[in-house]
Amino acid sequence: MYNLLKGKKGIIFGALNAESIAWKVAERAHEEGAEFVLTNAPIAMRMGAINELAEKTGSQIIPADATSMEDITNLVEQSMEILGGKIDFVLHSIGMSVNVRKGKHYTDPKYDFTTKGWDVSAVSFHKVMNVLYNKNAMNEWGSVVALTYMAAQRVFPDYNDMADNKAYLESIARSFGYFFGRDHKVRVNTISQSPTMTTAGSGVKGFDAFLNYAEEMSPLGNASALECADYTISLFSDLTKKVTLQNLFHDGGFSNMGISTKVMENFKTEE
Amino acid sequence: MYNLLKGKKGIIFGALNAESIAWKVAERAHEEGAEFVLTNAPIAMRMGAINELAEKTGSQIIPADATSMEDITNLVEQSMEILGGKIDFVLHSIGMSVNVRKGKHYTDPKYDFTTKGWDVSAVSFHKVMNVLYNKNAMNEWGSVVALTYMAAQRVFPDYNDMADNKAYLESIARSFGYFFGRDHKVRVNTISQSPTMTTAGSGVKGFDAFLNYAEEMSPLGNASALECADYTISLFSDLTKKVTLQNLFHDGGFSNMGISTKVMENFKTEE
Amino acid sequence: MYNLLKGKKGIIFGALNAESIAWKVAERAHEEGAEFVLTNAPIAMRMGAINELAEKTGSQIIPADATSMEDITNLVEQSMEILGGKIDFVLHSIGMSVNVRKGKHYTDPKYDFTTKGWDVSAVSFHKVMNVLYNKNAMNEWGSVVALTYMAAQRVFPDYNDMADNKAYLESIARSFGYFFGRDHKVRVNTISQSPTMTTAGSGVKGFDAFLNYAEEMSPLGNASALECADYTISLFSDLTKKVTLQNLFHDGGFSNMGISTKVMENFKTEE
Amino acid sequence: MYNLLKGKKGIIFGALNAESIAWKVAERAHEEGAEFVLTNAPIAMRMGAINELAEKTGSQIIPADATSMEDITNLVEQSMEILGGKIDFVLHSIGMSVNVRKGKHYTDPKYDFTTKGWDVSAVSFHKVMNVLYNKNAMNEWGSVVALTYMAAQRVFPDYNDMADNKAYLESIARSFGYFFGRDHKVRVNTISQSPTMTTAGSGVKGFDAFLNYAEEMSPLGNASALECADYTISLFSDLTKKVTLQNLFHDGGFSNMGISTKVMENFKTEE
Repeated sequence: MYNLLKGKKGIIFGALNAESIAWKVAERAHEEGAEFVLTNAPIAMRMGAINELAEKTGSQIIPADATSMEDITNLVEQSMEILGGKIDFVLHSIGMSVNVRKGKHYTDPKYDFTTKGWDVSAVSFHKVMNVLYNKNAMNEWGSVVALTYMAAQRVFPDYNDMADNKAYLESIARSFGYFFGRDHKVRVNTISQSPTMTTAGSGVKGFDAFLNYAEEMSPLGNASALECADYTISLFSDLTKKVTLQNLFHDGGFSNMGISTKVMENFKTEE
Repeated sequence: MYNLLKGKKGIIFGALNAESIAWKVAERAHEEGAEFVLTNAPIAMRMGAINELAEKTGSQIIPADATSMEDITNLVEQSMEILGGKIDFVLHSIGMSVNVRKGKHYTDPKYDFTTKGWDVSAVSFHKVMNVLYNKNAMNEWGSVVALTYMAAQRVFPDYNDMADNKAYLESIARSFGYFFGRDHKVRVNTISQSPTMTTAGSGVKGFDAFLNYAEEMSPLGNASALECADYTISLFSDLTKKVTLQNLFHDGGFSNMGISTKVMENFKTEE
Repeated sequence: MYNLLKGKKGIIFGALNAESIAWKVAERAHEEGAEFVLTNAPIAMRMGAINELAEKTGSQIIPADATSMEDITNLVEQSMEILGGKIDFVLHSIGMSVNVRKGKHYTDPKYDFTTKGWDVSAVSFHKVMNVLYNKNAMNEWGSVVALTYMAAQRVFPDYNDMADNKAYLESIARSFGYFFGRDHKVRVNTISQSPTMTTAGSGVKGFDAFLNYAEEMSPLGNASALECADYTISLFSDLTKKVTLQNLFHDGGFSNMGISTKVMENFKTEE
Repeated sequence: MYNLLKGKKGIIFGALNAESIAWKVAERAHEEGAEFVLTNAPIAMRMGAINELAEKTGSQIIPADATSMEDITNLVEQSMEILGGKIDFVLHSIGMSVNVRKGKHYTDPKYDFTTKGWDVSAVSFHKVMNVLYNKNAMNEWGSVVALTYMAAQRVFPDYNDMADNKAYLESIARSFGYFFGRDHKVRVNTISQSPTMTTAGSGVKGFDAFLNYAEEMSPLGNASALECADYTISLFSDLTKKVTLQNLFHDGGFSNMGISTKVMENFKTEE
């Protein structure tokens, strides 16, 4: 470990259990010398695993509904008090499609579900930055990262309306990132991660087949949750101060593959 | 004129007045031999100009709130009856940010306005395709086009939450376009048009300065509403049957410019 | 047929035989009322099929080595004389990798072959525009199109150094397109076509498997040579005057697919 | 400093003088605990400044013409001997347009110059990886980085044929990166850096005006050579093991800007 985040203070959204990317980010940030607050939706808290993480990393937990401006305001204010100053890094790892959960097909959703999923998965990112920006709660050269998926650029049929939500999320990163950079020297980026066998991922239909496909397509194979945490640390560190408004693929090369020799094996005709 | 749309039937959303791109598309589609239904929000109807267009192009008008599944269902059913068969082409030219109208800054919106603008500008496109797809209301090799703007990819600070709405809209084009193509051989694309001095455009702050900038940046200058209509016709025609899931820039080259010699003139230091 | 190119004059490079995309473009351009000159490398001429095309379309043939400024200059001058005026459209459909032909792997090429393939496949496009631009040989609102392939953006292992050549070609389209647009109102674009079973395509190893894969991935299936010709006609026509510096995917949707339901079938694990 | 590269061995191309990005990378890599060999074209060596850098960082210098397979082979073999093992990281920072130097305009180059610039600026990257790959000279999870510029994607008129060379270079990164990743677990990426006032940059016409423009456009301002070195270190470190085939913008946000409020100031019309 390198002391890359020594003296830095952060807020980490979305550590649900030990498979979560946010969980790994918290562990790695702790190893790198950061102090941070953990937060999650009150409903997710009931599962309780996060207490173990808090203990392990010496962190406090503040429940917050990321769709509520009131909750986020409280979270940011309390975090600054607990950590004793402004925030240096924020991880947004929140995503959920009610249509997927309820088995509604993309072509025939319930639009109330669509709105709810969009609010939780995408608008929450705007609200978090709204509070941080307007309360001037971040230090200069701070770093905000949200996790996203390549369905924002290309079609993955089973990803349903999460594809559109991620496109909206990535747009927020650019739109808000401009103002946050111009006015407070804060950078905002998204990491577009390989499919990962987290609790969220495992809810998607045919996820196994898709993991296989991505593994065979990517020259370096799929990226793990821990590797994603390492990459996130690099984006929180002072090594990446001028990287902003970017969507960064962390996927073993998948995003720039047309076909691999391994995938092609599956399409050879009999001779 | 070329008879490019002879025998084709369509639905055109968003012709507000003679400056509207949708208005020009209607005129050009008529010249190319198409028959179509015009539609607009009931509230926009009160301005009345659309009656003139209907008369000129021999079209009927069906008011429809594009956020209402009921209205869209009625629109599609009536259109098929009026036109005597399935639909060949659809233009979605709908966009509106309540935050912009009410003077709310991007970093401090009213989230009810954000939701309303998203629903009108982006989700409406999903609802239109939902009805067309599930009612099997389009002919094979039909074409759906939505108008968008490059703020979906890059930051234009005054474009406000319309940037995020357009990113969501373009994602819908890909996501729904996959199913519409696979199941009904219908193609779905978006046209990303130059800034255009329509009623919608003129509401954006500093629009004049931006028009100047885009004009000086683009090797062929900004594209006009009429030129956009021509391009739309090409996408409705049988010449573009295998173009789908694309976001197509129609902007005199702006989108691929880093800087032009003319723009650079403004940044020379005194010598 | 629509008379889309009535009165327009062109030069078409690369019609080798009836499977060539350029051959189909010539047939379609003729149907749409254009007059044009056909050209090919002197060595390709010996195969003779092009005479049949010339007769069918009432065209003359001018052999030209597209790597020779002298040949291209002669071609352009003679074409203007034959056609009685300046040129309205040009198709560049030239590509060849000596490394592929000689069975050299991408990681261990013969660099003389690399240079030769780059010169023929990519620099030739610069030379053609150089002559047209500096001789002021094109009418305002003329259109230049080059054929390319998505290997310029993503990895297709067997495409070898043609991938890099196509990236260079597409860059020329932007770089030269800027000056050609600014100074002569000529637009320059590339069409990125589905894999197509032409003479060129059939030389690539494992091309069958790749065709299958692309067919299963694309919601509208692969685009044919004839469909590509139709699309090219739309780009030569007056309907697309403000489209420039673009790389336009004509591929049934392949380019924006992450995975299709059909492709996924091949990656399901046993249960 | 963090010991991010402790125990890692590298080769750094292109440190010309203290303004060079490669120079800063060498200094930073040294601070992070790496050992490396410096290399440059024999002709660049005569300027002598590199000796100072070698002394400061405890490195040896091996002159090599990056267009010569013989020289590169010698460089790689000697480097492994000097460093006592396989290579972990390589920086390619080589670029030169003879057409720019000789004042030839993009639309009327000398094609011998074009070929020479392409060979030096782009093909050299292929040759370096060719030797490293075929000699199996890199450790697993090694990292190769080449510096590039956004002219590969968008038009910067004065960048001349370097735009096309950079497009070719970035394509090599993907094409070779696939094989290097698949077969040796080595990642290959390019960093697309802000315009930087190096010796190379200062040769470009109107570079001052362009620096101003980029500074005003970018929310975080232009990235410096030292900041680029920091970012490069992150890509050589173990924090980014699954990032490959990517072109990574390090530019204060420039690449995703459409217009900034500051740039817009210059285009306001009189009132």
